[in-house]
Amino acid sequence: MEWLGMYEALSAYGDSDFYPYHMPGHKRSRQMQEWSDFFRIDITEIDGFDNLHQAEGIIRQAQERASQLYGAEETFFLVNGSTCGVLSAVLAATEKKDTILIARNCHKSVYHAAFLQELQLRYLCPGQIAEYGIADAISPPAVEMALEKYPECKAVVITSPTYEGIIADIRGIAQIVHKYGKILIVDEAHGAHLGLAEGMPENAVRQGADLVIHSLHKTLPAMTQTALLHVNGNLVNRKKLRRYLSIFQTSSPSYVFMANMDACITYMRENADAGYAKMKSNYCHFMEQMKACKHIRIGNQEAVDKQCYHFKAWDMGKLVISVKGTVGMNGQQLYDILRDEFHLQMEMAADSYVLAIMTIMDGKEGWQRLADALLRIDGRIEAGGKSSFSLKLSETALPEAAMTIAKTFATILENEENCEEIPLIQAEGKIAGDFVNLYPPGIPILVPGEVIGKQEIERILESLRMGLCVQGISGQETIAVCRRKI
Amino acid sequence: MEWLGMYEALSAYGDSDFYPYHMPGHKRSRQMQEWSDFFRIDITEIDGFDNLHQAEGIIRQAQERASQLYGAEETFFLVNGSTCGVLSAVLAATEKKDTILIARNCHKSVYHAAFLQELQLRYLCPGQIAEYGIADAISPPAVEMALEKYPECKAVVITSPTYEGIIADIRGIAQIVHKYGKILIVDEAHGAHLGLAEGMPENAVRQGADLVIHSLHKTLPAMTQTALLHVNGNLVNRKKLRRYLSIFQTSSPSYVFMANMDACITYMRENADAGYAKMKSNYCHFMEQMKACKHIRIGNQEAVDKQCYHFKAWDMGKLVISVKGTVGMNGQQLYDILRDEFHLQMEMAADSYVLAIMTIMDGKEGWQRLADALLRIDGRIEAGGKSSFSLKLSETALPEAAMTIAKTFATILENEENCEEIPLIQAEGKIAGDFVNLYPPGIPILVPGEVIGKQEIERILESLRMGLCVQGISGQETIAVCRRKI
Repeated sequence: MEWLGMYEALSAYGDSDFYPYHMPGHKRSRQMQEWSDFFRIDITEIDGFDNLHQAEGIIRQAQERASQLYGAEETFFLVNGSTCGVLSAVLAATEKKDTILIARNCHKSVYHAAFLQELQLRYLCPGQIAEYGIADAISPPAVEMALEKYPECKAVVITSPTYEGIIADIRGIAQIVHKYGKILIVDEAHGAHLGLAEGMPENAVRQGADLVIHSLHKTLPAMTQTALLHVNGNLVNRKKLRRYLSIFQTSSPSYVFMANMDACITYMRENADAGYAKMKSNYCHFMEQMKACKHIRIGNQEAVDKQCYHFKAWDMGKLVISVKGTVGMNGQQLYDILRDEFHLQMEMAADSYVLAIMTIMDGKEGWQRLADALLRIDGRIEAGGKSSFSLKLSETALPEAAMTIAKTFATILENEENCEEIPLIQAEGKIAGDFVNLYPPGIPILVPGEVIGKQEIERILESLRMGLCVQGISGQETIAVCRRKI
Repeated sequence: MEWLGMYEALSAYGDSDFYPYHMPGHKRSRQMQEWSDFFRIDITEIDGFDNLHQAEGIIRQAQERASQLYGAEETFFLVNGSTCGVLSAVLAATEKKDTILIARNCHKSVYHAAFLQELQLRYLCPGQIAEYGIADAISPPAVEMALEKYPECKAVVITSPTYEGIIADIRGIAQIVHKYGKILIVDEAHGAHLGLAEGMPENAVRQGADLVIHSLHKTLPAMTQTALLHVNGNLVNRKKLRRYLSIFQTSSPSYVFMANMDACITYMRENADAGYAKMKSNYCHFMEQMKACKHIRIGNQEAVDKQCYHFKAWDMGKLVISVKGTVGMNGQQLYDILRDEFHLQMEMAADSYVLAIMTIMDGKEGWQRLADALLRIDGRIEAGGKSSFSLKLSETALPEAAMTIAKTFATILENEENCEEIPLIQAEGKIAGDFVNLYPPGIPILVPGEVIGKQEIERILESLRMGLCVQGISGQETIAVCRRKI
């Protein structure tokens, strides 16, 4: 049996004319070549080259450069992505069986942390930006209400920016969270570029969050899987934090990754101002051209009546390209056309939009190819008709949690008979035995231990009908349910 | 404040004449250049390029190629090193608060898994190969005795080969472990090359272990942080295993790593026979030259009276270069001379030896530079005198565990006053609040929760006097102790 090897397949793709409107932020740019002699720099912890898990030399200095750039008291390089930063942050901020308050649209690593630490979850449910069918930011008053209602929460976890680039008022949220004496963790994985240049929205580190996680690869010129964890203040037990980082990261961390993170930090310090000025000019020119579209709309702050919403800013690196309200075209179809016909690879397709990620590594060509393609596609779209379905999340609509995630998994794992795959349409009233996520970005429709409602079943069926990827539902439309523990 | 960036420091080192007798196994070889166009192949989970956490396409096929090479039913690529494979294996094989049987010289990730799963630990203590002062292999009868004594153990974890290349009789151990209905996990991180060529010792996968972890970067031409987890048989709950892998690995795994693992597998399939034949010839020539040494001895199977020991084979990729019994030279000093005078960077220094790692990427130059240097150094050494100190591990000598690791950490973390840093010399009878490891390879002298004995204090002081790295002891020779939980 012979296959095309992964290296060859990736290499052939790299040689093609497909343009990346997706992560990683380096956009496979030729500029990156100068950092690319990787095998030559791939070493282990030999003399003079420090140890990530006990950094005192060259790695510590590199981490300090990152702290300086972002305004953190302490920064840790992460070689296992934002995932290990989130796990470490949540476990350092809590004890076993604690309760925490999290935004429902948190990354799955937050839920995994809840599983490992046997946490009870209370939710902050983002509203919706109706014009685009995407989640709004969590607001400071919503956090205050929740902390009033659930004073037992030890920490608050917020995702900002969201996958679609919606930025919350972290300063306002931090003030409230600290007023209640809790720890604020901001999953700013999509915002490693924030605050780095003149006129950009500020990052969460400088706005008072206690723990902030940055994916470097998502929006900056850095390799996939590289990330940072920043700490400020004295609410977090740093010894405990270091303990978890040493558990969730390999004892053989990649020097290629660490050198790349350091090079990225230096590059941003030197080039962010010029880079984002150029990007802003490309963005404005692109938006100007998009005005000619009759149907396609690009999400941005000015385009929505901001008074109704809670977000502070909309990241110009996230283009929500919407076909909401059109006939005969949904997000998945737009995505397919852009890829198959124009060789433009988007980051993801949702119900009524596609998402393109733009970074300072995108030159005029990248912006122009997208504008040209969208203008041509727009000419083919019919207007009017039924509005696309879109996900709604609100606290009252959340399914009830009958058991914690940890309890649910323990029940299933101690005896496989406690878990059953049943047809989705017969699942009402049963307890979810696994996560059901709309992917990407992976917002859970159901969390293990939650009682499956009619609403969730309809939402899943509708998503499947639209061709979206629903993790946790089999090809035969079955779902894992857990026998209720008596 | 300006520093030399990590990339520049590593790059300058790569240009120097320092020769690597250490990991990673690719030895920074120029041959690797053909796989080195990394930014161009660093993508994310776009169409056609599969998803590590739900592999169905190109990644699944690459994993199947790895399964085929090693004889596993199923193989998982690990982008967070062997560490995440060990964590996932141990957590998949156990339930909360279970008891497991582990070799005392297991990697710290096994102890971390015990912490996360709140496990009770029972130990298999390796004997010593007196000629070299290194740990012997765990023997099948020792495993049988322990399982008789501790029938409550759910799984057995063995490290083979050891850091120094000592290979255990995994077939014999697997038979016994399975006779008792337990799961056998082999941390074969240092043995990814085993069984790949004619005449080599067999790997643990083909000898009947249920779960085997391979670091690719340690002994094969692969990047640091790449590893494999293999599964065989039906004792392991694979759904549970996948769950933990998805928790302990980033949701943005590196395609550079995955492509590199795949390329490494293909390279080994095609080149292992020729590569190891050439390596064996270099090894034999090296050993022949070493016969001229009056004081320095290289550990190998023929050199010790095998009847007294339990190991099956001694990996020719691990050169234990011993100065035991000489005057005026210990391991650290030999290490320093090789590095400073000859620019030969060893993997590590122990009390009475240094360790060099050799792989198929080492050509004649690498073997010859080492032989020449050792012959010259040997001429300067005086014979006789007191024998070097060396670590002894035996079951009777192990400190008593007053609490589990999880209980100890929970006690410390719930209230920092439960943890105290006290002078090591006053610590007798206190409970260890953290790991104390001799590093490398990181064998614990004390595990959190163990009662500190006179023997441990002496062992730590002696190691510090020899200039070895003891993790968990401060520069002021203090140790963290935990208040006993009433």
